[in-house]
Amino acid sequence: MTYRFVCTERVQFSDTDMAGIMHFANFFRFMERAEHAFFRSLGLSIWDDPARVPAEERVGWPRVHASCDFRTPLRFEDEAEIELLVEEIRSRVIRYVIRIWKADGELAAEGRMVAACVRKDATTGRLRAVDIPERVRSKIDAAPVELLRRPEAV
Amino acid sequence: MTYRFVCTERVQFSDTDMAGIMHFANFFRFMERAEHAFFRSLGLSIWDDPARVPAEERVGWPRVHASCDFRTPLRFEDEAEIELLVEEIRSRVIRYVIRIWKADGELAAEGRMVAACVRKDATTGRLRAVDIPERVRSKIDAAPVELLRRPEAV
Amino acid sequence: MTYRFVCTERVQFSDTDMAGIMHFANFFRFMERAEHAFFRSLGLSIWDDPARVPAEERVGWPRVHASCDFRTPLRFEDEAEIELLVEEIRSRVIRYVIRIWKADGELAAEGRMVAACVRKDATTGRLRAVDIPERVRSKIDAAPVELLRRPEAV
Amino acid sequence: MTYRFVCTERVQFSDTDMAGIMHFANFFRFMERAEHAFFRSLGLSIWDDPARVPAEERVGWPRVHASCDFRTPLRFEDEAEIELLVEEIRSRVIRYVIRIWKADGELAAEGRMVAACVRKDATTGRLRAVDIPERVRSKIDAAPVELLRRPEAV
Repeated sequence: MTYRFVCTERVQFSDTDMAGIMHFANFFRFMERAEHAFFRSLGLSIWDDPARVPAEERVGWPRVHASCDFRTPLRFEDEAEIELLVEEIRSRVIRYVIRIWKADGELAAEGRMVAACVRKDATTGRLRAVDIPERVRSKIDAAPVELLRRPEAV
Repeated sequence: MTYRFVCTERVQFSDTDMAGIMHFANFFRFMERAEHAFFRSLGLSIWDDPARVPAEERVGWPRVHASCDFRTPLRFEDEAEIELLVEEIRSRVIRYVIRIWKADGELAAEGRMVAACVRKDATTGRLRAVDIPERVRSKIDAAPVELLRRPEAV
Repeated sequence: MTYRFVCTERVQFSDTDMAGIMHFANFFRFMERAEHAFFRSLGLSIWDDPARVPAEERVGWPRVHASCDFRTPLRFEDEAEIELLVEEIRSRVIRYVIRIWKADGELAAEGRMVAACVRKDATTGRLRAVDIPERVRSKIDAAPVELLRRPEAV
Repeated sequence: MTYRFVCTERVQFSDTDMAGIMHFANFFRFMERAEHAFFRSLGLSIWDDPARVPAEERVGWPRVHASCDFRTPLRFEDEAEIELLVEEIRSRVIRYVIRIWKADGELAAEGRMVAACVRKDATTGRLRAVDIPERVRSKIDAAPVELLRRPEAV
């Protein structure tokens, strides 16, 4: 059971804006990259392949919430460490806390994402919330409270 | 004194992802477009032109916080109405509530952004928070509480 | 029969990069926006809605080629005029020339896109080139040669 | 003297569009990532740091041309190999050929970029083409013709 995942991303030229720093919307892309790499690290994919997962078992993970507090800018060619923590796993929802660290150990940003587990209804085509499948749930756990606490409180 | 601004944006093909809907990070771009169009509607620009504004008066508006609750997906070619409300204007910070409405009147997303007023220090080159200049402050007011209330509570 | 379409786009903050100008990849997004708005102006959509177009008539328009010559940078809040010209319409392919003009009449960029008309094979799921449907072909014509000539040659 | 560089990029969810494949404009971002990683591999940066390079020696590398032929789509989580070759290095310009390969060895796309070496004029602020500095030129060579030939011709 895993609750923490860390990966590294380099800030690309196309991630920057005319203020000379990473555009704020790209922090959310970094957060999503970590979520998807976390699933891969568990032998899963955020996108169930129709060739491998039967339609009645396929699920998707749209975000119902995302937020970010920006502390310090990231700049071109900075290597950022993205730390993903599972804040909570409920029957139909996973909540993440994601911290983006600069190479010198300074916190650049802290965000949250809430992803709902959904399935496309075969008849109506609409998405509806469903229970997280056991093949996913059995691999993910919530992080200990002390890890989730705001870093400055440590 | 203005506290509300509305503009319309069409969802572009490059805004969508393989789930067939607008990628969540692009909601933040829509929110920022509304903020910048709001400034233009007041005869201002979020980016002070060095050719027109003296260095000691130039300010920038980095985000210190952004969040969004996603309710209903937007799809390719949807025309969304983006409604920006000034939640609060303090000495060095403006807080916005931004609602993204579908053409049929359904709320697609509701977000918040907090922009800090900063100036680049001429000697150190670092950004530091400064008071919002009178030329900006005199034009912006906080919206009435009843407008800021969550739409479903109305 | 139409061969020319013009629309206007404003350069957004998130379109810029740390060099202070529109990032080159976003010129291709501008080009695509014009292509899609051109289809809308003809009462068509680049994306056939499954609810309205039978599966055996649906087509898609992936690019097989795109290129751009960059002449003059575009900057934040610039309003650019995007001029799309149909260079050639063949049985399965449409070739476009797209010019992006600054407000002062200077050419910022000139590009080309080649879009192939494809249909998803119901059995294999693979895309294959098909003839452009009459409902599209009947509305589009190639532009006169003198319009297609490089502007500087005029 | 180097003329070839290879790196690997994974297709992210936000790189895809509603057609289920990588959006064509993102191929240009992949091409640029390879160019910048190539410079890093030589101990250089595409963006001269004002803190380390004197103003009169700083250069920038805007694109004057970019093009791409798209052969086979890339999909979410595909790992693509990006192969950059220096097609030509002239006094003020570097031309690249960039091939994007799928993991199975199939060519997904082949593109070209032409980057001009420019310096910002201290008085007018305008960019003007300048000779490629020796510190860059001494490290880069043009690739042998047989490498540059279209892969299908091999």
